[in-house]
Amino acid sequence: MREDNIIREEDYVLLVLDDKRRWIVKAKAGGSFHTHKGIVKFDDLLGQEFGTSVKSTGDRELAVFRPTIADMALLKMMRSTQIIYPKDSAMIVIQCGIGPGSKVVEAGTGSGSLTSMVANYVRPTGRVYSYEARKEFLDTARKNLELAGVSECVEIKNADITQGIAEKDVDAVILDLATPWLIVQLAWEALKGSGVLSSYSPTIEQTQKTVKEASKDDLFGDIQTYECFVRKILVREGKTRPETFMVGHTGYMTFARKLNKNSRQTNQTNFPAFAKL
Amino acid sequence: MREDNIIREEDYVLLVLDDKRRWIVKAKAGGSFHTHKGIVKFDDLLGQEFGTSVKSTGDRELAVFRPTIADMALLKMMRSTQIIYPKDSAMIVIQCGIGPGSKVVEAGTGSGSLTSMVANYVRPTGRVYSYEARKEFLDTARKNLELAGVSECVEIKNADITQGIAEKDVDAVILDLATPWLIVQLAWEALKGSGVLSSYSPTIEQTQKTVKEASKDDLFGDIQTYECFVRKILVREGKTRPETFMVGHTGYMTFARKLNKNSRQTNQTNFPAFAKL
Amino acid sequence: MREDNIIREEDYVLLVLDDKRRWIVKAKAGGSFHTHKGIVKFDDLLGQEFGTSVKSTGDRELAVFRPTIADMALLKMMRSTQIIYPKDSAMIVIQCGIGPGSKVVEAGTGSGSLTSMVANYVRPTGRVYSYEARKEFLDTARKNLELAGVSECVEIKNADITQGIAEKDVDAVILDLATPWLIVQLAWEALKGSGVLSSYSPTIEQTQKTVKEASKDDLFGDIQTYECFVRKILVREGKTRPETFMVGHTGYMTFARKLNKNSRQTNQTNFPAFAKL
Amino acid sequence: MREDNIIREEDYVLLVLDDKRRWIVKAKAGGSFHTHKGIVKFDDLLGQEFGTSVKSTGDRELAVFRPTIADMALLKMMRSTQIIYPKDSAMIVIQCGIGPGSKVVEAGTGSGSLTSMVANYVRPTGRVYSYEARKEFLDTARKNLELAGVSECVEIKNADITQGIAEKDVDAVILDLATPWLIVQLAWEALKGSGVLSSYSPTIEQTQKTVKEASKDDLFGDIQTYECFVRKILVREGKTRPETFMVGHTGYMTFARKLNKNSRQTNQTNFPAFAKL
Repeated sequence: MREDNIIREEDYVLLVLDDKRRWIVKAKAGGSFHTHKGIVKFDDLLGQEFGTSVKSTGDRELAVFRPTIADMALLKMMRSTQIIYPKDSAMIVIQCGIGPGSKVVEAGTGSGSLTSMVANYVRPTGRVYSYEARKEFLDTARKNLELAGVSECVEIKNADITQGIAEKDVDAVILDLATPWLIVQLAWEALKGSGVLSSYSPTIEQTQKTVKEASKDDLFGDIQTYECFVRKILVREGKTRPETFMVGHTGYMTFARKLNKNSRQTNQTNFPAFAKL
Repeated sequence: MREDNIIREEDYVLLVLDDKRRWIVKAKAGGSFHTHKGIVKFDDLLGQEFGTSVKSTGDRELAVFRPTIADMALLKMMRSTQIIYPKDSAMIVIQCGIGPGSKVVEAGTGSGSLTSMVANYVRPTGRVYSYEARKEFLDTARKNLELAGVSECVEIKNADITQGIAEKDVDAVILDLATPWLIVQLAWEALKGSGVLSSYSPTIEQTQKTVKEASKDDLFGDIQTYECFVRKILVREGKTRPETFMVGHTGYMTFARKLNKNSRQTNQTNFPAFAKL
Repeated sequence: MREDNIIREEDYVLLVLDDKRRWIVKAKAGGSFHTHKGIVKFDDLLGQEFGTSVKSTGDRELAVFRPTIADMALLKMMRSTQIIYPKDSAMIVIQCGIGPGSKVVEAGTGSGSLTSMVANYVRPTGRVYSYEARKEFLDTARKNLELAGVSECVEIKNADITQGIAEKDVDAVILDLATPWLIVQLAWEALKGSGVLSSYSPTIEQTQKTVKEASKDDLFGDIQTYECFVRKILVREGKTRPETFMVGHTGYMTFARKLNKNSRQTNQTNFPAFAKL
Repeated sequence: MREDNIIREEDYVLLVLDDKRRWIVKAKAGGSFHTHKGIVKFDDLLGQEFGTSVKSTGDRELAVFRPTIADMALLKMMRSTQIIYPKDSAMIVIQCGIGPGSKVVEAGTGSGSLTSMVANYVRPTGRVYSYEARKEFLDTARKNLELAGVSECVEIKNADITQGIAEKDVDAVILDLATPWLIVQLAWEALKGSGVLSSYSPTIEQTQKTVKEASKDDLFGDIQTYECFVRKILVREGKTRPETFMVGHTGYMTFARKLNKNSRQTNQTNFPAFAKL
């Protein structure tokens, strides 16, 4: 994060017209941004402090904020592939015990939205190894990581994670893949003891297969699956009410902690596991 | 985070017997922990890697994990006062744009559970200034911050935040208070432009008053209120289903971004605000 | 309900192309219904049993079902005013203890969707007295009640319910009004002892005022407010998941039971009530 | 429903002390009911109107209401087996298009709670045929149906429904069974065209099997699965908030409408169905 709070060339700014109409754009001297309520000239912003406002040529006032990682994820990265919502990535970061210094394996990179979130919280000494087999995503992902300001903590690997994980003793393995169950054994090998496997899947069948695989031979213990709902409340004088439509489902999040081999050898049957409960 | 993964004297360990029965205890040579399923001797754990398991004298196997900040918040800190659940603190951290280096004001400290979460994510260069007027909470809070390993990033201030905020140009002000609306003007003064005010309240009336205050004179823009539900899914072979009981309400979370004075002076009426929508 | 199950002239039929594309239309000899997937000719349906299918001129098969009251409410009546969703009207019917023979006062009629639901369940011996001050709704409401086949159990009254309720000793008073709290005292007078007042409101402020009024002087006891969410689950081979978007809010439902005067006179303070809890 | 509103011998009354403490008891001359807040003497109630209040010997006032079918289901019937909550049975009644005159097959009877709800809404001319293989439930079920006042509309059949359904041309088949998918073909045979099959199951696997079976050979169309959540809102002056704990899951509800044979023969592939979507 920069020391001062001044909007400069090449900075991303969040323009807010109202609840629904909001954009993240890069400020360029001489440039402008077109909304259906008129044009915003970047020269009106440059040199101002974030938190200022600006008038469009259509005489509408827009607030000018500094975008957060969550804004980036929602507004900037969602174009290329399915993104993970901030509500879910927040839970993943916290349930995985991720913090500054954490060493994390992640797959697939996709547009880099979850990667950015995780990378933001391992800074400055941690590292994210992000696997993506599909070449066509790499450019977008790299651009988005730069945009989020976390490039130096991320190593994007153009590799199929089902073919192996090179890293060892990692703190967490975070999966957002169509077939996460294929990676469970590899994740176990990559994790340190007590390290967390996290898997995010839209369907219950993906979740079932992954939980089943994770509980096999007591590879993992304390296996938990959650779904998270967020509802917006419209707080308005005399007419406060929740928003009519909400996102009712994004994905199921599964978390599991690595059990060491010695425990598993001497004890095949005592942990809470898929097959036994 | 320590380099190796070995359980040593004075380490906190998470013991998991099953889904519901889990404890965080401090490992001490010669000591033991009593469960209703027998005694766990710490000497059986010391020198082992996290992720191991241990047998109680009642012949029950317990998994031994390294507790995360979220485990700490849920299992260790919830005794003294109402805590904020990890699902909510995760959202607060991400919506406030908190990351390594962030400068944050927080009140009240309480048992220090939200403080620990926030502090964990400003490490190593950021700082949390945590206000707590009630003397009787200070000891517990300090102990919990130590327990979470974040003491060096937190300055606990035994002061009533309604009497003033000493810090300036902070990135976020995070409130968990009975009367958050009294702090809105002070928070505006402490924040840098575009900085985020976050307020967490169990009741809708607290939320309404806070939103009203924040939208006065366009102090803040982009004011949003959310509630977050988390539901556990019991993934079991042939009988997968959500858990019967869930936490249906913890608190409403309001987020608002500081608008600078100049914008407000020239433009009193254009932003989405409580009184106008 | 007619004895046989044959589609005849003037019958309403529910045409289902898929999950989202469904219509209720009146079958007329020689007539047809135009979809973007071709034309359905009613002569292909007349004389068939409900549950049949029909091919459009675009060679698409549509299922032909007998519409239920809930289908009517969702597909047919929702055009004129805000309707109450079947999930909510179902709860209102059951929580009010409505059944065959019940005598119910309702306001406002609106398009008649809630009226139809309630009327359907008081049949054949009960009666719904439905108040609607706005003349412009009466025609639509009458048409919709006919459509639902419940006209003979409903008396639509073109009157402002705040001016008084003519009925006495009714089993339930069901309100879907902008200012329900103005009717609470009148509802009390119309209800028999232990009869149920039900009020449906989109905002929390309407709900608060109504609950406050109902608990004044112990007019009502056992006052409860609920919200009801329904989420659709897409059960598909290998890819079962909840639907992405859902209705997150319709309205709050409040239920209260009439306390008799004698109780109230002798005992002003013992019941669970708004002002005291 | 009786004409007058007077509490008489053998009437069931709902006693409400507060939100959590409520009981349904049978009023008997000379008898009494013991609460931890003192004794209620039935002689104080007999001859009073419903909606009155009564003082316990512990000087606490209790409200005395006439129990509805929903009260019965929740308070009186839940002792013997798992009951279906009123929120769910309300949706089942409405989605099945049940009303006065409907002819319904139901299984299993269990304690009779869903049976009572359905029976209440087919009165006075309809009929519920309720199958229960387990002899030990019959007595409780019969007692509960009597308690709910719906005995004359229900025929309890001590038979295993997997062995066949004797009824033909029924409007709805309502299943609350461990293995509902075994009944799908039989339900099809019992239903009239466009009649509704409803199945309630706690687990997703039961639901998947049932949906799969119902969509086979286009036996049924318009197959929909829902879950329903109800959250209580505590409306209190200055401190309105949802209740902390809620029921997060009861069961999934599946509804499907019978397609006639002729449609199915000529058209095997066009309807929205499990295997094809």
